[in-house]
Amino acid sequence: MPDTSALTAVHSFAAGRWIPPGSGARVIHSAVTGEPLYSAGSDAPDAAAMLGWATDKGGPALRAMTFHDRARMVKALALWLKEHRQVLCNLSFDTGATQKDHLIDVDGGIGTMLVFASKGRREMPAGQVYIDGAAEQISRTGTFMGQHIAMPLQGVAVQINAFNFPVWGMLEKLAPALIAGVPSIVKPATATSYVTEACVRLILQSGLLPEGTVQLITGGTGNLLDHLGGQDVVSFTGSAETALKLRSNPRLLAGATRFTAEQDSLNASVLGTDAGPGTQEFDLFVKEVHREMTVKAGQKCTAIRRVMVPERHVDAVISALSGRLAETTVGDPRLDTTDMGALVSQEKKNDVLEKCTQLSKEAERVFGDPDSFSVMGENTRNGAFLPPMLFHCAAPDDAVHLHNTEAFGPVATVMGYRDTDHAARLLNRGKGSLVASVFTGDPEVAREITLASASFHGRLYFNNRTSMTEATGHGAPLPHMIHGGPGRAGGGEELGGVRGVLHYMQRTAIQGSPDIISGITGQWMPGTTQDRSKPHPFTRSFGDLVPGDTLTAGPRRITTDDIETFAHFTGDTFYAHMDEEAAAANPFFPGRVAHGYLLLSFAAGMFVQPDPGPVLANTGLDNLRFMTPVIPGDVITVTLTVKAKTPRTEDYGEVRWHVKLTNGEDATVAEYDLLTMNAV
Amino acid sequence: MPDTSALTAVHSFAAGRWIPPGSGARVIHSAVTGEPLYSAGSDAPDAAAMLGWATDKGGPALRAMTFHDRARMVKALALWLKEHRQVLCNLSFDTGATQKDHLIDVDGGIGTMLVFASKGRREMPAGQVYIDGAAEQISRTGTFMGQHIAMPLQGVAVQINAFNFPVWGMLEKLAPALIAGVPSIVKPATATSYVTEACVRLILQSGLLPEGTVQLITGGTGNLLDHLGGQDVVSFTGSAETALKLRSNPRLLAGATRFTAEQDSLNASVLGTDAGPGTQEFDLFVKEVHREMTVKAGQKCTAIRRVMVPERHVDAVISALSGRLAETTVGDPRLDTTDMGALVSQEKKNDVLEKCTQLSKEAERVFGDPDSFSVMGENTRNGAFLPPMLFHCAAPDDAVHLHNTEAFGPVATVMGYRDTDHAARLLNRGKGSLVASVFTGDPEVAREITLASASFHGRLYFNNRTSMTEATGHGAPLPHMIHGGPGRAGGGEELGGVRGVLHYMQRTAIQGSPDIISGITGQWMPGTTQDRSKPHPFTRSFGDLVPGDTLTAGPRRITTDDIETFAHFTGDTFYAHMDEEAAAANPFFPGRVAHGYLLLSFAAGMFVQPDPGPVLANTGLDNLRFMTPVIPGDVITVTLTVKAKTPRTEDYGEVRWHVKLTNGEDATVAEYDLLTMNAV
Repeated sequence: MPDTSALTAVHSFAAGRWIPPGSGARVIHSAVTGEPLYSAGSDAPDAAAMLGWATDKGGPALRAMTFHDRARMVKALALWLKEHRQVLCNLSFDTGATQKDHLIDVDGGIGTMLVFASKGRREMPAGQVYIDGAAEQISRTGTFMGQHIAMPLQGVAVQINAFNFPVWGMLEKLAPALIAGVPSIVKPATATSYVTEACVRLILQSGLLPEGTVQLITGGTGNLLDHLGGQDVVSFTGSAETALKLRSNPRLLAGATRFTAEQDSLNASVLGTDAGPGTQEFDLFVKEVHREMTVKAGQKCTAIRRVMVPERHVDAVISALSGRLAETTVGDPRLDTTDMGALVSQEKKNDVLEKCTQLSKEAERVFGDPDSFSVMGENTRNGAFLPPMLFHCAAPDDAVHLHNTEAFGPVATVMGYRDTDHAARLLNRGKGSLVASVFTGDPEVAREITLASASFHGRLYFNNRTSMTEATGHGAPLPHMIHGGPGRAGGGEELGGVRGVLHYMQRTAIQGSPDIISGITGQWMPGTTQDRSKPHPFTRSFGDLVPGDTLTAGPRRITTDDIETFAHFTGDTFYAHMDEEAAAANPFFPGRVAHGYLLLSFAAGMFVQPDPGPVLANTGLDNLRFMTPVIPGDVITVTLTVKAKTPRTEDYGEVRWHVKLTNGEDATVAEYDLLTMNAV
Repeated sequence: MPDTSALTAVHSFAAGRWIPPGSGARVIHSAVTGEPLYSAGSDAPDAAAMLGWATDKGGPALRAMTFHDRARMVKALALWLKEHRQVLCNLSFDTGATQKDHLIDVDGGIGTMLVFASKGRREMPAGQVYIDGAAEQISRTGTFMGQHIAMPLQGVAVQINAFNFPVWGMLEKLAPALIAGVPSIVKPATATSYVTEACVRLILQSGLLPEGTVQLITGGTGNLLDHLGGQDVVSFTGSAETALKLRSNPRLLAGATRFTAEQDSLNASVLGTDAGPGTQEFDLFVKEVHREMTVKAGQKCTAIRRVMVPERHVDAVISALSGRLAETTVGDPRLDTTDMGALVSQEKKNDVLEKCTQLSKEAERVFGDPDSFSVMGENTRNGAFLPPMLFHCAAPDDAVHLHNTEAFGPVATVMGYRDTDHAARLLNRGKGSLVASVFTGDPEVAREITLASASFHGRLYFNNRTSMTEATGHGAPLPHMIHGGPGRAGGGEELGGVRGVLHYMQRTAIQGSPDIISGITGQWMPGTTQDRSKPHPFTRSFGDLVPGDTLTAGPRRITTDDIETFAHFTGDTFYAHMDEEAAAANPFFPGRVAHGYLLLSFAAGMFVQPDPGPVLANTGLDNLRFMTPVIPGDVITVTLTVKAKTPRTEDYGEVRWHVKLTNGEDATVAEYDLLTMNAV
């Protein structure tokens, strides 16, 4: 039993209390110097107390807020963390991470929160009910309809994270859970838990989150999982081995607890058949493989492990890559001159070496020698350093380890392929990955690989000379795009904007009368009661408007003169408006008809209020459909109804109006959503 | 060992061959007469051969088709089955099902296929790549972008169905799998497998499906599941016990094989606090509970098991329900006078009786006596008949069986609740259900229940006097709406239109330059190369147009006169167009600006071709956003680009055009999608 009294204690935060390491605590060493630094691992948490604290306090507090409230909270939290980011960077060096690596972990995590906050306000409603997809017309006259919604789960999100991104790993799960309205229990990997603990302390210090929203377990989860049920979610990132253990938990299986895993992945990068030496794509490819091998010392779930190149370019690629790798300085991550830091621990380093031994049975090491390489910096003798190592496999079709063994370090293997179809087959041998990239300027190559292989990957990344200056990198999961993959990659999905938020929510089909559906969603739907009793809605402020407020204006008669005038004024002399005989020969028209834009313009003329008022501007129009042609002599009437309101700033809000034009026989001429910006 | 030589053999269909029952075959008895009728249960199938047949033949053949091709195929198949439906109805009587029950199973299954076929053509592209959501702008100048797509999984869909709907149960899974492009292996429950087998024979006889698309296992699945991986899906409907066994399969867990289950569910129906005796809602409620208890003899996964009513109305509900139940004739399902048929087997009947015994510990039986009831029809003595049985639980908060024990037969329990919040808590005691219904005319009651309970249900069904004539029923899963539920209900999701198709597909994030994304999706995207070399696109037929074909027209100068003319002609004299000083005071405008509709109209005037040609009509407009105001003296230019094409009939196709208006400084004035119908 080592003397841990000199070490910094990494705490858990459970049911409102900070809990020090317990009897089974482990010592965490610096990845750089090997010195013992921290003691981490609280005794098994009181699962019932933690869950109770989350579901009695955190859940109800979050659910009482709107999506916009929660998104604003996440934004404020991100800005707070940005202000205090240096605390986290300073700690992170000892995980082996370089200054550049911090950009991914710390700044990347904060940036992810900001994107979720932005999407929460732009793409989710300013209410408590998320509307999923279009209304379903399931009755003839519209008295009964369907709508999918999503609501926050009422349990907890147990988030079990990997060691490699102690900040990003937490924040990329926490942000969507918070916006969904679900409290989280975060369990970081022990090796880097001191960084996560510091981040949780910052979060709590901010005072921005309701009590019960975030808890932290450093150490084992005890029997926490055995307390979970159908309203809970377990989101895991880490090894396939641990994922399998977790997902095999009988309680999770019996309760159909939602489980998502992002685990192993033999990610690949393909040099397109069009991208030989001398092309910009070739150079981009070499640069990207090098980057993916060395960033975070290759300890990235999205790192490139398999390097697929046209057979004739294998030597050129190995040569170019080796050249770049030879210029890569391995050393103390605190040094400005260091390109690649240490692996997180001796244990992980040894694991990588063991996997390299397996790879060596099928592939030849063509660059890097773990027994002979330089490490810059003082006191790094006991650090967990490795050199980048490149392998070449001459017979990738026969190989097994190559497509199944993930050396989680600065290791990749080059292999040749014959044609695009062969490349796709090699890609699919990975049995499911987080990401595959293709360097090609040829959309046809991109399409072929996509058709043959997309279902094996959570993400397909293409780069070429057109996109190179703005491309975000093979290995970077963006909050906008889903992250996860089928099969070996765990079958899970995270991020992807609102998709990632829905992961913490239950989708429910709602069926009922339009009044009922409107009451639930807070949006007026066609068929819902319309209130015509109030003054003209364009004279009332954003705050005064209620979904369902309606104005009917007209009728106005459309004459042949109107059509002629409009045609000559606008230049739109399409025959269906000008020539009775030719129009009648058109399968959609009975004869000359009014221009669609004439009808829209007249409708605006009927409902607009000329004087300054709360309506500031018409900002757009959605889902316009022309349904019945209008012939000269027809009269049109317009009905304008407040459909939904979305606050945008302190001064303005967006109003979505449903507009319906009808003719003298009450047939619908056109329907659309009109958008205006209104003063509050 | 019974002599099975006189029985009809139920076959499997594996790797292209019909396989007779094997040594372990079971005898299936008529539910009505108890007579032995069928022998079913082939020997364990050759899993490798079945999977090979599906993935070598069925998968590639389906994936070579477009979504529209596959949807048309599903429609043709549905119409074929409709023509031959009587074959299936005739067989189904022996499962205990009545004529009315056939409408749900046989006609409901065919109807589900038709809705999927229709949605496949209306909501999915006429191509092989499904586009999921909007493009993601992830770069400043647009040279690199993101788009989610979905592609068919390359494995098989193993569909394990319940006994109660031998036709619907298969078709509601088969239709979305076919449209997705994934071959199916169907495993019906043995008790009613003869109906499913007959349906599969009809499907194969139709000759409409590619070889390898559908296989059938009657009997055990052997080690089939042990051969599945990350490109396969297991979709299960049945008991929680079997679901747990399947989802605990180590191979499925290790391979992250997609698994969805629709299992037990203590579905409830709530009488709203506003809906006392004498209201139409009260009558609807009683009618619906009665229907759900008796249709299919209560053997429906969506049937109402828990009947929640305001405490003061408990007696009235029991009395009204008992009255209706007393008028329910139990008997031979072939008789026109029969309201409720038999349970599927003696085994299932005994199981229901056992569950009733458990319920009796907490609830009193207030209607129906299994030891004393009438069964109409000759030779029904050995049939698996039960009477409808109603229980009353006086202390639902203390009850355990009530909220956890599903008697899968004509059984329901009435319980009182104090207020809406109490009702929601009782609902949630079911720990996840497929559907809950609420009978209320009050949108506020609907909203309260939704906020408190939606996350516990896959579907929430509301009915009242407004919707009653068109409401589709508490127990009817519609193809438009998702079916499944959290927790006890299995945590799965099926149906729901395209959502149900995506269940058999992999969502993948694609990143690349616009040209690459367009090449993959077959749609032009902003930033993709535009081809201005061809004749005016309005002069070319639907078939000749290629996404990217572009016309630029203009410039046209906008004058004060234009604005004045338009204002007085249309009646839209909004001050921002008419009054320089007032307009300048508006936060969005520099001074007087042109009407948005004036700009749209002029744009049309610039690109329209006056003479008859392939463009037949402007049918609509989407996603219009006004971005820069146009002041008098500005010039506008319009750029029109073919974005996507969708064939609609043999004569017409819909063209989606991207339209961009720019001003003299090349700033974007407005952007929108224009829809036209074009001759092929």
